[in-house]
Amino acid sequence: MLKTHYVKDLSAELDNEHVKLAGWVHEIRAVGKICFVLLRDSTGIAQLIALKQDTPEELFKLIGGLAIESAITVDGIVKKSEQSKKGYEVQIKDILVLARAETLPITVTEKGITIGLEKRLDYRSIDLRKPRNSAIFRIQSAIVEGFVNNLNNKGFLQVFTPALLGSTSEGGAEVFRFKYFEKDAFLRQDPQLHRQLAILGGIEKLYDLGPSWRAEASHTTRHLCEHRTMAPEMAFLEDEMDTIRLEEDLIVSALKNVQHKCEAELEVLNIKLNIPEAPFPELRFPKIYDIVEEEGGKLEYGADPDAEAMKILWEHVQKKYKSDFYFFNRFPSAIKPFYVMKVDDDPEWARSVDLNFRGLELSSGGQREHRHDKLMEQVKEKGMNPKHIAWFTEFFRYGAPPHGGFAIGIERITKELLNLENVREAAIFPRAPERLEP
Amino acid sequence: MLKTHYVKDLSAELDNEHVKLAGWVHEIRAVGKICFVLLRDSTGIAQLIALKQDTPEELFKLIGGLAIESAITVDGIVKKSEQSKKGYEVQIKDILVLARAETLPITVTEKGITIGLEKRLDYRSIDLRKPRNSAIFRIQSAIVEGFVNNLNNKGFLQVFTPALLGSTSEGGAEVFRFKYFEKDAFLRQDPQLHRQLAILGGIEKLYDLGPSWRAEASHTTRHLCEHRTMAPEMAFLEDEMDTIRLEEDLIVSALKNVQHKCEAELEVLNIKLNIPEAPFPELRFPKIYDIVEEEGGKLEYGADPDAEAMKILWEHVQKKYKSDFYFFNRFPSAIKPFYVMKVDDDPEWARSVDLNFRGLELSSGGQREHRHDKLMEQVKEKGMNPKHIAWFTEFFRYGAPPHGGFAIGIERITKELLNLENVREAAIFPRAPERLEP
Repeated sequence: MLKTHYVKDLSAELDNEHVKLAGWVHEIRAVGKICFVLLRDSTGIAQLIALKQDTPEELFKLIGGLAIESAITVDGIVKKSEQSKKGYEVQIKDILVLARAETLPITVTEKGITIGLEKRLDYRSIDLRKPRNSAIFRIQSAIVEGFVNNLNNKGFLQVFTPALLGSTSEGGAEVFRFKYFEKDAFLRQDPQLHRQLAILGGIEKLYDLGPSWRAEASHTTRHLCEHRTMAPEMAFLEDEMDTIRLEEDLIVSALKNVQHKCEAELEVLNIKLNIPEAPFPELRFPKIYDIVEEEGGKLEYGADPDAEAMKILWEHVQKKYKSDFYFFNRFPSAIKPFYVMKVDDDPEWARSVDLNFRGLELSSGGQREHRHDKLMEQVKEKGMNPKHIAWFTEFFRYGAPPHGGFAIGIERITKELLNLENVREAAIFPRAPERLEP
Repeated sequence: MLKTHYVKDLSAELDNEHVKLAGWVHEIRAVGKICFVLLRDSTGIAQLIALKQDTPEELFKLIGGLAIESAITVDGIVKKSEQSKKGYEVQIKDILVLARAETLPITVTEKGITIGLEKRLDYRSIDLRKPRNSAIFRIQSAIVEGFVNNLNNKGFLQVFTPALLGSTSEGGAEVFRFKYFEKDAFLRQDPQLHRQLAILGGIEKLYDLGPSWRAEASHTTRHLCEHRTMAPEMAFLEDEMDTIRLEEDLIVSALKNVQHKCEAELEVLNIKLNIPEAPFPELRFPKIYDIVEEEGGKLEYGADPDAEAMKILWEHVQKKYKSDFYFFNRFPSAIKPFYVMKVDDDPEWARSVDLNFRGLELSSGGQREHRHDKLMEQVKEKGMNPKHIAWFTEFFRYGAPPHGGFAIGIERITKELLNLENVREAAIFPRAPERLEP
């Protein structure tokens, strides 16, 4: 490799050590006979310094003429420095320009004019270099790593369920369809049904980490046409509370991993992370309707909470539990898909769970109906054609165990935790109705 | 959860302990006044036993009448047993049938008539219950875990590059296309170009773990229409040898993880795993042409090795290095895509690397061309329209660092390591030209 150290590995303790760095020219300042170069790599920014008197003329000229965002390697010596914010700087001994950058169409530093998100996304490969964006994706990766390590340690298998489907489970709206040889195929909107089929296949604990798609011509700050979910599913649970216990444990693990690995990144984004404590508060329907009313709001009995009710419920949770994360459970069966399990002795309500964060839904899940006769009843109740879903339901004849799970939106949790304005900022190359590039 | 122990946790050391198990009825045998039940869960098979004299009549009747593949829970007591192969069996105290299975369309035990792969795939959720298939996906998950842990420990970020593309880089053949609102979109055949754009975005070390698709009406045992790759990419490498060093380290990690976690599964599949030693042998073009000739084969100068040459080269490696894994490097530039880096002082050959295993290609990769002028030359050489690929190449104007990587096919490495006949066996729900279900 062309480097011996990453910026984050540098410190005053390396005083007088020779290091080889590589990265991009973030900024240059020439102050009389001193030249300062800010070198940025994926882990941070280091201040490099060249004194005219100590530097060969040609090198000093090269340094002064460096184009912003050029890719370079640097031979240097770490020097303790009281004046420097980080306690050290790096004396430049040699610089090699690997690739000179032309004049940039957008800036990488946070300074100067503000550029709109869409233009930034047009030039995403430059935009991603911003320390702010680098921080977002380092944190996103740490969230995912936290999830994955937790699940692997619990014996969950990572499986890869198909993205291409031969039929749609929930109507044809908002689904991308295409010609698959002689057939029609669809991009999945959700990996759920195949996770369930994998459970029925005897893989008791599994997760799918992958993309799903929605052909929704929506331009809100919360929608992507392509997003990813971390979606665990497990068999032989007692009831939906087992999915709740797993989910809160995952969240705690992920946040701890972020706190552990991404201190500097959280600082760049100015985010103070609170590690929540399990158990998270759980509100249940129909009690939720009473709470909304008691708090002065209005939510029709049997309805899904709207934005106003979500806000009221979040304020209620804040007052009563002081928790950012909280569950809703026992949603009305009528507004949930055919595969959810109803409460046997109170079938108006389902073992259907949402995880919320500060008034916004982060994930959906709960216990699924595993009994073939009940499942087929629910297929009919929802007005679905049993033939269209038989590829899925037929397998429930052969000893389907109780099971459940949930799907956490990777971009969504990134957006909410980091308080990003638009979920597109949480996708490295987002896909939206008008955006297929870069 | 409905269980206190998994089958793999049981042993004679738990003698007289009460356990709660859950799983599927694999087999039943009634021998006079004794009933044996083989209980299978995702981790193995345990022998349960009920003696008529010690068992309530109703329970004994229930046990005798259990339908194969029903999902059950078992309360039992572990008993040391000299006669039992595993050194213990479980005395049944109670059984609860969670879901009774109807008569199966295919068998789950390996006994009896052999059922063809396609029929097995039609009933995949039953087929997956076979200990053999369970073992395949437990090992696949351990391979992936080995890759992921190795990369995470090295500071690589997991990123999710887009599956939907606005244009195709390598012609329109073999790509699934569909209507994306008002535009045409394509399913990626490979996550490479966006990995490169992420590198240009300053994410120095990253991997994409996700699906790609090929609309290839091919019915060989080596092709899937949907497959997944583990695809790392890194910046600031010296040359393609850095990708080789990374790749062999990944392979060693993954295999060690399999050996560590999947001893029983390897036994089920009758696979003896050899952990290879790094560095793996590396053969280079054009020397490869000489080797083929010396070994009595024929391979035209400048051509890609065909099946016959692959076999000869594998035999050569076996003789000379005794290694199952080996690299080919410096492929002819003429047969490689526009983005590969040529050797500067010998541009007939490229820094293009394949990893092979026993005569079969597992992955492709190497160093990419990062210099904008050279890249554009290569676009023209390949007869591509520069406008169509400008969404990608334009970013190389702004300080693109040297970089490289590779993509290992998850299903392919699973197939080859486990000596499976057909790669479809290595996809949990495979997609082939005639198969979109289940």
